[in-house]
Amino acid sequence: MTINEIIDQRLGAPVAPSLGRLQPLGLREVTLREGFWQRRQDVNRTNSLAHIESWLERAGWLGNFTGAPQHRRGREFSDSEIYKLLEAMAWELGRSPDAGLEERYRSIVARVAAAQDADGYLNTNFGRPGQQPRYSDLEWGHELYCYGHLIQAAVARARTFGADQLVDVAIRAADHLCDAFGPGGIASVCGHAEIEPALVELYRVTGNTRYLDQARLFVERRGHQVLSDIEFGRSYFQDDMPVREATVLRGHAVRAVYLAAGAVDLAVETGDTDLLDAVTRQWQNTVARRVYITGGIGSRHQDEAFGEDFVLPPDRAYSETCAGVGSVMLAWRLLLAQGDARYADLMERTLFNVIATSPSDDGTRFFYANTLHQRETGTEPAPDALVPRAASTLRAPWFSVSCCPTNLARTFASLAGYIATKDDDGVQIHQYAAASIRTGDIGLDVETDYPVSGQVAIRVVHSPAAPWTLTLRIPHWATGATVDGAQVSPGLVHLRRDFTAGDTVLLDLAVTPRLTTADPRIDAVRGCAVVERGPVVYCAESVDLPDGVPVDALRLDPGVPLHDHDGGVAASCQVTLLDDDSWPYHDPAPELRTGAVDVTLRPYHDWASRGPSTMRVWLPLADQP
Amino acid sequence: MTINEIIDQRLGAPVAPSLGRLQPLGLREVTLREGFWQRRQDVNRTNSLAHIESWLERAGWLGNFTGAPQHRRGREFSDSEIYKLLEAMAWELGRSPDAGLEERYRSIVARVAAAQDADGYLNTNFGRPGQQPRYSDLEWGHELYCYGHLIQAAVARARTFGADQLVDVAIRAADHLCDAFGPGGIASVCGHAEIEPALVELYRVTGNTRYLDQARLFVERRGHQVLSDIEFGRSYFQDDMPVREATVLRGHAVRAVYLAAGAVDLAVETGDTDLLDAVTRQWQNTVARRVYITGGIGSRHQDEAFGEDFVLPPDRAYSETCAGVGSVMLAWRLLLAQGDARYADLMERTLFNVIATSPSDDGTRFFYANTLHQRETGTEPAPDALVPRAASTLRAPWFSVSCCPTNLARTFASLAGYIATKDDDGVQIHQYAAASIRTGDIGLDVETDYPVSGQVAIRVVHSPAAPWTLTLRIPHWATGATVDGAQVSPGLVHLRRDFTAGDTVLLDLAVTPRLTTADPRIDAVRGCAVVERGPVVYCAESVDLPDGVPVDALRLDPGVPLHDHDGGVAASCQVTLLDDDSWPYHDPAPELRTGAVDVTLRPYHDWASRGPSTMRVWLPLADQP
Repeated sequence: MTINEIIDQRLGAPVAPSLGRLQPLGLREVTLREGFWQRRQDVNRTNSLAHIESWLERAGWLGNFTGAPQHRRGREFSDSEIYKLLEAMAWELGRSPDAGLEERYRSIVARVAAAQDADGYLNTNFGRPGQQPRYSDLEWGHELYCYGHLIQAAVARARTFGADQLVDVAIRAADHLCDAFGPGGIASVCGHAEIEPALVELYRVTGNTRYLDQARLFVERRGHQVLSDIEFGRSYFQDDMPVREATVLRGHAVRAVYLAAGAVDLAVETGDTDLLDAVTRQWQNTVARRVYITGGIGSRHQDEAFGEDFVLPPDRAYSETCAGVGSVMLAWRLLLAQGDARYADLMERTLFNVIATSPSDDGTRFFYANTLHQRETGTEPAPDALVPRAASTLRAPWFSVSCCPTNLARTFASLAGYIATKDDDGVQIHQYAAASIRTGDIGLDVETDYPVSGQVAIRVVHSPAAPWTLTLRIPHWATGATVDGAQVSPGLVHLRRDFTAGDTVLLDLAVTPRLTTADPRIDAVRGCAVVERGPVVYCAESVDLPDGVPVDALRLDPGVPLHDHDGGVAASCQVTLLDDDSWPYHDPAPELRTGAVDVTLRPYHDWASRGPSTMRVWLPLADQP
Repeated sequence: MTINEIIDQRLGAPVAPSLGRLQPLGLREVTLREGFWQRRQDVNRTNSLAHIESWLERAGWLGNFTGAPQHRRGREFSDSEIYKLLEAMAWELGRSPDAGLEERYRSIVARVAAAQDADGYLNTNFGRPGQQPRYSDLEWGHELYCYGHLIQAAVARARTFGADQLVDVAIRAADHLCDAFGPGGIASVCGHAEIEPALVELYRVTGNTRYLDQARLFVERRGHQVLSDIEFGRSYFQDDMPVREATVLRGHAVRAVYLAAGAVDLAVETGDTDLLDAVTRQWQNTVARRVYITGGIGSRHQDEAFGEDFVLPPDRAYSETCAGVGSVMLAWRLLLAQGDARYADLMERTLFNVIATSPSDDGTRFFYANTLHQRETGTEPAPDALVPRAASTLRAPWFSVSCCPTNLARTFASLAGYIATKDDDGVQIHQYAAASIRTGDIGLDVETDYPVSGQVAIRVVHSPAAPWTLTLRIPHWATGATVDGAQVSPGLVHLRRDFTAGDTVLLDLAVTPRLTTADPRIDAVRGCAVVERGPVVYCAESVDLPDGVPVDALRLDPGVPLHDHDGGVAASCQVTLLDDDSWPYHDPAPELRTGAVDVTLRPYHDWASRGPSTMRVWLPLADQP
């Protein structure tokens, strides 16, 4: 089949396995409607894409493709930001054509194409006069990582439009790298995984098994100490242990989840159940021991890495936005392969508490790291400030390492692809958002203002005559949920019926505030609790507190019921002020309690939207020291 | 006065202010005798000095002084390790001459001298063919930092021996740098403080006010953004705010305490009470909010820096050994200036729990970072392994950045200088160790096996005929202490008497195990306690536990009294095993208690001496979740 024949079957899905338990729906099959995610998707299209393009231009990273090598600007991986922008544009153009956006897309593609060498090599940082030779620094050079994002952009374009100049450039680059790193070539891998899922996706688009074979080589090589050792150790780039043998995700969090995503893609396409089992085991152990309550991953600033099991300090959470994106990529692939609700549970948590947290309301400022405890009020970065990657305590317009804004852009643009799937028996709804679903003979309209309320009405617009199954995910926290008034348990609910147009299924997820505590092995939050409401994590922010009451003085009273209040959750807290400024280790001293206050907790994803503040997600309980 | 006249007055004190509340005693006035510190001092002399010299040779850092620039090895600051070794050798030769050691010392000095340029410049990493120009990278180049250690080594030699080739080299370097950075010269500072205290000490040795003036320039310039901004921010090298205005120590911990030490030296010599008050305030706030219970400082691996107030996670403690050395340097200077017991309290805590923790029993392996919670057993570095600076979970023979072994060496060699002081009214004993004190007409022998017991006998060997005052520090934790049977309170006890030879003062510091908790603002240890005994922090180590009981399963029962047992402290702990491997955030789950065990806790400074282990200092209390 040609690319253009393939895309007609795929209808624009961001990930499109040939095999697996569930089949994705494409951006032509699911459309978001007015609601939490559609608002963010619109802001991404109207504001973020232009914001990103403008910064890529002014920072010179776009100009690198046509400029002289000696004037190259930006970090060694800056090419990838252009590719991620192109991927976002491609998904947006697939969702809804726009002549102006199409022209901007084509103009950037033309500039990228101009930098490609005759043999397919493409990277503005290596191999040209005055630069390091090609592939001379696989540990840090990111050349294959950049190809990966180039290919992902081309896959998005192929699935939403068909063959074009970008697809051609990406295929030439892929053919080149298969020559360079294939059998008999350089027997190594890239320090930063990303080429692995990209090559499998390119195989899915083109049917060319050469790309699948190359992905397998990369996945199997890693872990055999093919890269040099570095200060952080080889676990930093997952070269400490083969993917098949590892029991948990480790090292640099983004690299870890990108690699695992590629391993799932490979396992699915090749029917390699051992490999799929290995990644599943790693995912499960990671979720049980190395994930923040927000879904965020990475507790070490130093190497942007996972810490050891249960090392999840709120105040030093790194929880990089890109790691959240990668975690969604991984969980989605596992969900398609296996169908378990737990994958969609983690995706939902990560979407509402990492992905939704990073951008400002207007989509022009971003968190790179997503702390769960802000102890000092920061200063707002200037609109023209280039901020070091994680130094900002407030959302910043751009970063020296600016991977997160472009990663968000491609995620928001393709978000509808993560809402629902199909199989031979019907449709599965994994994420609740106002949306239209049209696949084959089945048409569903989902009406909800989730997560504000837990009411979800699923209206059948058209249906085949024969019975089919509508599967709904009941989130793990949704005890008390009902479907058409009947109580259901967390997990999957299968409604096999003779549906007819006009039928409505009423799901109530019983969204009420609740108090959550942590496994006691998570030392850093001993004696604390978090307020959650539906999939949303709440926090106490200084701007909501009376003068003179710091967030760190709050002691949540678990005896007073939580209740919805003014768009937030009202909680009763005792206030504990401590003025002692001597040696802080001694026999227990009586705390100075100055009474109780009612505090309105706000969704964590909205924090720092009202200027500099201090904040905490985990609140000490009043009956704790 | 000439240098040789000056040293006769100073008798080898590591820090020798002209002014201040107390006067130091030199290494000829205080001698350690058989006991905790003397054993470590002997191991340092017999094993560590040779171990360090051998590594400096094989790593090529010593060879840099005579080798070709293009073959230079090691990091940009490696010259300083040679200087710190020379300082340690100089103190040791001052304590007790040794022909072999003297020859090794002179041989190294000759090699160093060979690298000095005609104008006094001396650095193997800059300014020679193929190298960056002199002073072209003040942020990271460490040239002035290296001078600082060169000068400190020369000061040690001058105070213990007199003028020699090293003293001459250092004076020529100092004169050169005063030309280069003096009025009209480069109006900046070094990214790593150290030259500041060194120049004041060189002024004290030589009487040349030019060095004092230059130290003042350096101290006053810093904080006015004279260095370039970096990813970590200018606070990393304390260039964010003038020393006079800061309220707390911040940024890179070693740089912060070295700078503060230099500021105290400057303030004392110039009678600048504002500056002294500023540093005192910073020290007090730091001790109340940014110091681990071990005395360790620095809670961030990423930039080896202080965290915000109360961010003191045990499992991510950086607590660099060198920062402990610097903290002792700072507290000692404040003690000499002001006489308060709290400075000696922190010194004692840091000496017993950071300085004594770093080296192995045989003085040939070292901790760079000193964690308070080891979650995973590491692997023992090979004897010939060059370990990245903080990657080791076990003591390592040498590091790529190997500042700590040499810093320990100079500290152990000069340790007797921190035991006691004098003033016009008598002698003050600050640290309890078996020692002989001989100063002027006063002779005291201190007999004790402290900290094993709290019994200290101070025997008067000779005394002036007139009454004088013996001042004893009662540590802040020593409630129940007695002097000659009479109860005394923590702080200073002044015994003004007509002492005669043969008199004995009996101090009992009531060393018994105790339970210590933390200020509740230290979130990371909520619900936990530490067992301390005298000045020593204790820990639970896996090698002392029954099979199948991980240290993280221990819940200390505060209702069962602690008692001394088998060289450690016996504590009763409940064991809480958790096997759950699902999402770790939920409603409180009942813990699986599997009974109680008696655990023998061991001194933290001895941990990891019996092979790979896991360890924790802070133990959750049994009545906590």
